Amino acid sequence: MRAVDIIRKKRDGNSLDQAEIEAFVSAATHHTWPEYQVSALLMAVVLRGMSADETAWLTAAMIRSGSTLDWSDLPGPKVDKHSTGGVGDKTSLILAPLAAACGCVVPMMSGRGLGHTGGTLDKLESIPGFRVRLSLPDFRSALQNVGCALIGQTAEIAPADKVLYALRDVTATVESIALIAASIMSKKIAEGIQALVMDVKFGRGAFMKRIDDARVLARTLVDIGNANGVRTEALLTAMDTPLGHNVGNALEVIESIETLKGNGPKDLESLSVTLVVRMLLLAGVAQSEAGAEARVREALGSGAGLDKLRAIIRQQGGDPVVIDDYNRFELARDRAYVTADKSGFVSSLDAELVGRAAMILGAGRDRVDDRVDPGVGVTVLKKPGARLCVGERIMELYHRGDARTDRATDLLRAACVIAERPPAPLPLIREIIE
Amino acid sequence: MRAVDIIRKKRDGNSLDQAEIEAFVSAATHHTWPEYQVSALLMAVVLRGMSADETAWLTAAMIRSGSTLDWSDLPGPKVDKHSTGGVGDKTSLILAPLAAACGCVVPMMSGRGLGHTGGTLDKLESIPGFRVRLSLPDFRSALQNVGCALIGQTAEIAPADKVLYALRDVTATVESIALIAASIMSKKIAEGIQALVMDVKFGRGAFMKRIDDARVLARTLVDIGNANGVRTEALLTAMDTPLGHNVGNALEVIESIETLKGNGPKDLESLSVTLVVRMLLLAGVAQSEAGAEARVREALGSGAGLDKLRAIIRQQGGDPVVIDDYNRFELARDRAYVTADKSGFVSSLDAELVGRAAMILGAGRDRVDDRVDPGVGVTVLKKPGARLCVGERIMELYHRGDARTDRATDLLRAACVIAERPPAPLPLIREIIE
Repeated sequence: MRAVDIIRKKRDGNSLDQAEIEAFVSAATHHTWPEYQVSALLMAVVLRGMSADETAWLTAAMIRSGSTLDWSDLPGPKVDKHSTGGVGDKTSLILAPLAAACGCVVPMMSGRGLGHTGGTLDKLESIPGFRVRLSLPDFRSALQNVGCALIGQTAEIAPADKVLYALRDVTATVESIALIAASIMSKKIAEGIQALVMDVKFGRGAFMKRIDDARVLARTLVDIGNANGVRTEALLTAMDTPLGHNVGNALEVIESIETLKGNGPKDLESLSVTLVVRMLLLAGVAQSEAGAEARVREALGSGAGLDKLRAIIRQQGGDPVVIDDYNRFELARDRAYVTADKSGFVSSLDAELVGRAAMILGAGRDRVDDRVDPGVGVTVLKKPGARLCVGERIMELYHRGDARTDRATDLLRAACVIAERPPAPLPLIREIIE
Repeated sequence: MRAVDIIRKKRDGNSLDQAEIEAFVSAATHHTWPEYQVSALLMAVVLRGMSADETAWLTAAMIRSGSTLDWSDLPGPKVDKHSTGGVGDKTSLILAPLAAACGCVVPMMSGRGLGHTGGTLDKLESIPGFRVRLSLPDFRSALQNVGCALIGQTAEIAPADKVLYALRDVTATVESIALIAASIMSKKIAEGIQALVMDVKFGRGAFMKRIDDARVLARTLVDIGNANGVRTEALLTAMDTPLGHNVGNALEVIESIETLKGNGPKDLESLSVTLVVRMLLLAGVAQSEAGAEARVREALGSGAGLDKLRAIIRQQGGDPVVIDDYNRFELARDRAYVTADKSGFVSSLDAELVGRAAMILGAGRDRVDDRVDPGVGVTVLKKPGARLCVGERIMELYHRGDARTDRATDLLRAACVIAERPPAPLPLIREIIE
């Protein structure tokens, strides 16, 4: 099977068979195809697409490029959630403890932030001492002791994805539903889970700007999961405005703790609870939506979710006192504000620009090897719909007092639109793809 | 200007500007883009296409990657012909001497055969002693003394093409009108010519199977030439059946000599004469088609063309006695035949299969580093339209008496269709694109 023939077949719009896809993934992983052939095929895939079968085979081949974890000796259903990435999206920090508190095992492997979107690992590392790199035995102990661990991807999981992603990033071949879906699902399926809830974001702050594109991705993800024996469903959720109030690593952990204490903003609490409800239903822990929601509300109200987060932090080497003393976070001391230049209502608050402002302050990465600053970020004081007087504070910046602050402030000003009337309220969760 | 942004722009179907195309060609030539980025962009070009402007800029950038030859100190118009490749196409060996005999300067740089099509350089090298590699000073002397030289591409000419072609060959990115046209025209324009006649082949034995595709390529070639100050026109000619009778290196040189002696097959002589007529008209050597044809017929009938070939051979170190003594060619001694298994007419004779059979015998290359055998090949004894009795010889093989002979014979049998009626005669030259 010659590389050039496989490339030509896809170039001409034909479907590859399973053996051809296996050959490609194996050759890419072990560098037996030169990278110029791998990238030529990736470009052909971006422009010609892949069928559902091809995408499922690609995912399976990427899973087989590494190990698949096996938790069958641990009691309880293994279930996870994954988001396609948003601004202020800290639901993982809330729902993982809640799901564990409801009896699920949550072996969650997350990623880091890139561009205007944040990453769960960066947020967790703002907790002093917290370790996101666990060996497989430590990962197992954590699940056994706490029922949940929040860690980075281990090298054993889908190594093909690392190789392919690095090449896609520099050859403009990221934007393919098939390649994106296979990348996400290969890593999730290899976690050894039985059920998976996907949070597929769309809108100004999301990778997918249009709900139609998000729906296609969601359908692809759900089909791949179900084809590989993982019960999967996807929520289509709006990401036009930041989720909750806080954007930035420590700021988002604090907001997550507040939410587990029952003081969370409505949008964040509601989405987190719904995601856990879907996890419990998919995992078979609850039989009805009402039953599931009652369990989640109970875990939230009783403090069981908060206790679980405390246990997770302790298990992974972090300082659990942060939960009661936010001074343990190294928050930036300097503050700046964006204020209203006229009265009216916050009409919209562009999530991408807010995310980009937080990145410029140091909370995120422009390139994969940039370091993030745990203490900087943005707090949205007035969300869309809020009434404003002239001069009133709309956003608060946690900054380091350098030239980046002005650049971030300019972006935040551009992000906020003030109008005479409040915007029409739209639901956060638009569809569930089963 | 980041490579990934240029790749993305083409991937999304946008036109690249001249600076972007310059950056790409320069980076590919000097290896400052990694090959995986070059191949990703090539695949995007194959699938998204290039506008006429982009193709002209690409050609210009490829020309500028090397030197452009300058013969302005030599008297006479500089003119050349190029064919997109066929089976039995030895017109260059006939028309170059004829055009030189009519007062043109012909600085012809040719290529080698690949796959089922032959190459002028391989044919010339079947002449004992003939050197196709000349230094630039020797090239100049040859043009000065003889008015014509038939050589291989020098390293100074369009080095970008060498780099890009090597990568296209292994990444299934050969098949793009823009890339093909830029590759051909960059090399021809850099020859320092004022006029160029393109012979664009279509049909079973050609790269382009359909006349519509050939017409698009021809139009692109003509536009690039004219945009770069080279008066260019293209003939669309049928390549369903081999041109002339002989396929194979020495065999084709012998047939060319016979044609210059006035004994050529009708199709070969007619196409060669027409191509020289178009060269004379484009170069301004003749003002009318009738006048041009009279001059070419005179050069053919008087033996002036044959004398010019003799001078070319002598000038380039070959043995000019071959012209009068074909025993100087190292023709294979063994013969085999394909005979008619029924009576009727030769209905068709698939040029691609005949070319492939000759390649298997050793006359051509499957891979660029294969060596060719000058003495093997196929003579078509009965062309389409010829009447056949059972057992009559249709094709003669010049072979080396090894296992390849049977494989070639099988292909030749498959190439020949015998029917009860002769095929409808179709003209060889279908259109002229000016």
